[in-house]
Amino acid sequence: MSKKKIIYTRAEMLKLNKDILAKRGVDIESIAEISYQQQSKYSDQVSLNVCVESVEKILSLRDIFHHVQLACEIDRLAEEGLFQGPIQDIIEQDFGLFGVDETMGLDVSSLYGTIGQTNFGDIDVNKHGIVQKLNDAGKEEGICHTFLDDIVGAIAAAASTRVAQILNEDLASEDNGVERFSIFDI
Amino acid sequence: MSKKKIIYTRAEMLKLNKDILAKRGVDIESIAEISYQQQSKYSDQVSLNVCVESVEKILSLRDIFHHVQLACEIDRLAEEGLFQGPIQDIIEQDFGLFGVDETMGLDVSSLYGTIGQTNFGDIDVNKHGIVQKLNDAGKEEGICHTFLDDIVGAIAAAASTRVAQILNEDLASEDNGVERFSIFDI
Amino acid sequence: MSKKKIIYTRAEMLKLNKDILAKRGVDIESIAEISYQQQSKYSDQVSLNVCVESVEKILSLRDIFHHVQLACEIDRLAEEGLFQGPIQDIIEQDFGLFGVDETMGLDVSSLYGTIGQTNFGDIDVNKHGIVQKLNDAGKEEGICHTFLDDIVGAIAAAASTRVAQILNEDLASEDNGVERFSIFDI
Amino acid sequence: MSKKKIIYTRAEMLKLNKDILAKRGVDIESIAEISYQQQSKYSDQVSLNVCVESVEKILSLRDIFHHVQLACEIDRLAEEGLFQGPIQDIIEQDFGLFGVDETMGLDVSSLYGTIGQTNFGDIDVNKHGIVQKLNDAGKEEGICHTFLDDIVGAIAAAASTRVAQILNEDLASEDNGVERFSIFDI
Repeated sequence: MSKKKIIYTRAEMLKLNKDILAKRGVDIESIAEISYQQQSKYSDQVSLNVCVESVEKILSLRDIFHHVQLACEIDRLAEEGLFQGPIQDIIEQDFGLFGVDETMGLDVSSLYGTIGQTNFGDIDVNKHGIVQKLNDAGKEEGICHTFLDDIVGAIAAAASTRVAQILNEDLASEDNGVERFSIFDI
Repeated sequence: MSKKKIIYTRAEMLKLNKDILAKRGVDIESIAEISYQQQSKYSDQVSLNVCVESVEKILSLRDIFHHVQLACEIDRLAEEGLFQGPIQDIIEQDFGLFGVDETMGLDVSSLYGTIGQTNFGDIDVNKHGIVQKLNDAGKEEGICHTFLDDIVGAIAAAASTRVAQILNEDLASEDNGVERFSIFDI
Repeated sequence: MSKKKIIYTRAEMLKLNKDILAKRGVDIESIAEISYQQQSKYSDQVSLNVCVESVEKILSLRDIFHHVQLACEIDRLAEEGLFQGPIQDIIEQDFGLFGVDETMGLDVSSLYGTIGQTNFGDIDVNKHGIVQKLNDAGKEEGICHTFLDDIVGAIAAAASTRVAQILNEDLASEDNGVERFSIFDI
Repeated sequence: MSKKKIIYTRAEMLKLNKDILAKRGVDIESIAEISYQQQSKYSDQVSLNVCVESVEKILSLRDIFHHVQLACEIDRLAEEGLFQGPIQDIIEQDFGLFGVDETMGLDVSSLYGTIGQTNFGDIDVNKHGIVQKLNDAGKEEGICHTFLDDIVGAIAAAASTRVAQILNEDLASEDNGVERFSIFDI
């Protein structure tokens, strides 16, 4: 069997993620807006820019790449009726007790700390911004957003947490008057 | 070293949990009310009774027993200033980026399925019922509820999920006209 | 759109899970044997019977039903080359840094307590019993076991933890000379 | 109430973590050695240096700072008998079904991807290197390592995963002949 390409650079992963999300009707800004709404409640130093930057960073990470690509493909396969057995209808109908999408979302949202996971729970239950739109559209015949709305909400929650970490790091540096040693150089 | 008692029966664990929660100002009903509010949005077949019963079942489980007892004790030790080093002030002040309490809450809330974890996120961020009261009281001098509000919210979220599972099981049995084979006999 | 069946009884879910696992080459006994090997190290009171019973209980639960059905179907779809984009080769080749299968496994394995998750890690890394066989067979042309080996290992880990809980509950009851109040009535 | 210091810079957190671990008998090298043993099985390009560097990065992160400081303090408080109620003996005796320490370890170990969590399970169950030593010493009268061995194993597992990510990123860059865009700039 010829060796297939399975390892991608971060630039490639970012591009492939943007492409597949666009195909499923989601752009970076609509994800960043959820983060902006969550964080601007706590601080007036948050800009939409840092939220957009955060979403792009997240979309270039390997684990997130795998989650996004798989989530979008599961939804597409369900739309095309390609699953066999009971799981086809369970995914297609977005059954309320089906939780594998939330399991994946909880993993994605923990990227910059545990509070990302509670942020994700809030977005998932209360359906902020684009998440509500995806959820509604997913109820139409032939459209399945069962995994997409969770993965998008989870990225927004992780971005939101990244922004909170940056703001706190700035505070820590001011307190100490020392050169910044970024929390994001991990 | 004399052998110490570390294994408790379920009846003992329920009693010990009720006692320590009462000492910290929390009763079963106030936890059950959060579950009731969450689930009565989705179905009119939910009673406060089944929520109370669910909270009591949860409080008799071994993993939950360990979480509840440790959470209450960490708060008390912080109130008495018995932690050494930076963690004393971080816990006492309930620092927003401190997430070990949420890590424990996420574990507790997953008891009856993943959607318990998103329910917990909702309760944690939007501070329903007793969770808001605990959070407010925890800001007073000498009172620390850093772990308590999360553990209480997580129990409510798990109870809420148990109720959802029971309702769906009833539906499944009706569909089939078969004798009930309870999901809670696990 | 006609209403489709998405809610199953526990008896139905157990049967459907046994069927799909058999189709993918896995029977209950081979899963139970991993649990037996893990737990018989700690106690000589473990029987293969209680491990088989535990695996069957687990396979009848709703969250596990969803995980098992989806995991088996993802592997089949990858075998048939039905995923589009980079995720097809990543799943088919079982890329070492692909972790969505482990994310699902960690969720399944936590069913009876956190130690199930470390038991799963041990099984996943050291590839006990049927897990090793599935992993090896998955390297052959046309066979994909990327999700199957993790879901099987996770069920074994959860069963192993259930057995440990039963043994400890027996000890607690003996200590107290009281009627048994089962931990598994949750 | 005078404002207390709760936000630390990364340099401060690294130093405070090294100090408290040293006080509990653990140095950076002994943690790095576990990572080295895990990863050198898969690649001959792993050096102990990159493992030490990884452990130090991890110890400078905020969430890890909170986990390490709390874990070490819980053990100390248990040694001094300062917990009230049943949790004192449960922690002091390191009861096998107590899993809050594993819950914290699973959170720490997921830092660079899910495979860190299965790596942690392997370390926790099979007790590699310093983890075995801590576990043995914890059985002596007056010494409690219930949380320490898990937090140390989890840091080793996260470091191990970081090293695996670096090696794969190097491969991805070679494949493309492009300038490196580091996965660790997150």
